[in-house]
Amino acid sequence: MLVHRRKFRIEWGQCDPAGVVYYPQFFIIFDVSTAQLFERTGLSGSELRKKYGTIGMPPVDARATFLRPCFYDDVMTAECEIAEWGRSSFTVRHRILKGGELAVEGFEKRIWAKFHPERAGIKPEPVPDEIKASLSG
Amino acid sequence: MLVHRRKFRIEWGQCDPAGVVYYPQFFIIFDVSTAQLFERTGLSGSELRKKYGTIGMPPVDARATFLRPCFYDDVMTAECEIAEWGRSSFTVRHRILKGGELAVEGFEKRIWAKFHPERAGIKPEPVPDEIKASLSG
Amino acid sequence: MLVHRRKFRIEWGQCDPAGVVYYPQFFIIFDVSTAQLFERTGLSGSELRKKYGTIGMPPVDARATFLRPCFYDDVMTAECEIAEWGRSSFTVRHRILKGGELAVEGFEKRIWAKFHPERAGIKPEPVPDEIKASLSG
Amino acid sequence: MLVHRRKFRIEWGQCDPAGVVYYPQFFIIFDVSTAQLFERTGLSGSELRKKYGTIGMPPVDARATFLRPCFYDDVMTAECEIAEWGRSSFTVRHRILKGGELAVEGFEKRIWAKFHPERAGIKPEPVPDEIKASLSG
Repeated sequence: MLVHRRKFRIEWGQCDPAGVVYYPQFFIIFDVSTAQLFERTGLSGSELRKKYGTIGMPPVDARATFLRPCFYDDVMTAECEIAEWGRSSFTVRHRILKGGELAVEGFEKRIWAKFHPERAGIKPEPVPDEIKASLSG
Repeated sequence: MLVHRRKFRIEWGQCDPAGVVYYPQFFIIFDVSTAQLFERTGLSGSELRKKYGTIGMPPVDARATFLRPCFYDDVMTAECEIAEWGRSSFTVRHRILKGGELAVEGFEKRIWAKFHPERAGIKPEPVPDEIKASLSG
Repeated sequence: MLVHRRKFRIEWGQCDPAGVVYYPQFFIIFDVSTAQLFERTGLSGSELRKKYGTIGMPPVDARATFLRPCFYDDVMTAECEIAEWGRSSFTVRHRILKGGELAVEGFEKRIWAKFHPERAGIKPEPVPDEIKASLSG
Repeated sequence: MLVHRRKFRIEWGQCDPAGVVYYPQFFIIFDVSTAQLFERTGLSGSELRKKYGTIGMPPVDARATFLRPCFYDDVMTAECEIAEWGRSSFTVRHRILKGGELAVEGFEKRIWAKFHPERAGIKPEPVPDEIKASLSG
């Protein structure tokens, strides 16, 4: 699979009084990584939504395991890739590294969905083949 | 186990352009619930830190499963309880309900830790017996 | 003017490594207070949007002055009221108190707006008289 | 004065159900810009804190004026510079541009502070001359 990698730095406002990253922030980091992974299809997030009529990629499951504390100013690398394609769902595997060592790992399972006037507004749709192809690397 | 329950409302700023809660917000909700659960010991979060010399309860694992979309203004109930006591760790089970139906469920595994000048500042310590007793209901 | 008051507690995740509230959090607090103030009209935020076709109350100006540091677990009171009604705008004055003393004060100037297909989606509209009346106390 | 410029993109999680940036997020953007401006001294935020014994640069006043709505995926430029040096305080002027046009402008007034065991932990100190010199461009 195609691995998307990005560098980022831990910001002051992402950390808590213990001086480490407040853990929900890592899920924001996952979400940004996933958005960037899907841009590797050649379409921005808003172009993707326009072209396919999707409403985002709502999560059904998300998990993170915290292996090393991360502090303000730490320089990090976030990696992600598709771990599994379902019919209308997919799983993104995330790894966050600090100085080459794994600090956080996790995954997000999301669905490819269109807007539906009923059923809470969400209707799962098959992931388009060309999306699968372009992220399968 | 003692179940801690609280009502809350979904705020505008917790929702994303799809009109539903931006999922990392649920982990913030989990964190606030866990903090309130530990206040059922009779000590506030800062009293707990002072009395036991802990530095917070750093997470080692967190997961959420999303069953129903939650919208701005929805009135929710968050429930949590200790699912398991380890020696120096514990697992909190979370359930978030909307109109009596399960919307999000998940858990956090955290450690009871003191500050340590080395080892990344964190030294696991046994969870005090009186803490276990008071949250075991 | 009608003054809306609410109590809240400073959460762990709202604080930074200096142990005090990360300042942008106060604007989230302002936003929640303003939402609650407008519920004093008898309509929830989503009912208000439905009845009047508004798209929220986009801010045009916001300011906060920080007088006292606020720490984790501090019990606070947030007060707000309309400071001024314009034709299609209004100013909300905010005061955040800690133990009876002013900790943060500020304001938000917002517009009453409908969705417009052009002009960046926003069209200012006169604030309805009954809204003005019910918040004028 | 030295102007610090950075490009960034509006993320999904920074936007609200109206599809625009949730306004408190702009103060997080200001805070990150200010942190980067001070790195132009040649020291990272944590090196700065270690060398000078500061505890961050607590804000005393912050304001933003919103001129154009900013949407998911918009590519933005954030600029900031010192607008005024006080003895132990300073004002940072912020401008956020979208396609070359001003979208948000504002300022932060902050103090240069050391930790103090009393007085709420904060003791203002004169801004070091070499800091002033290196940011005066």
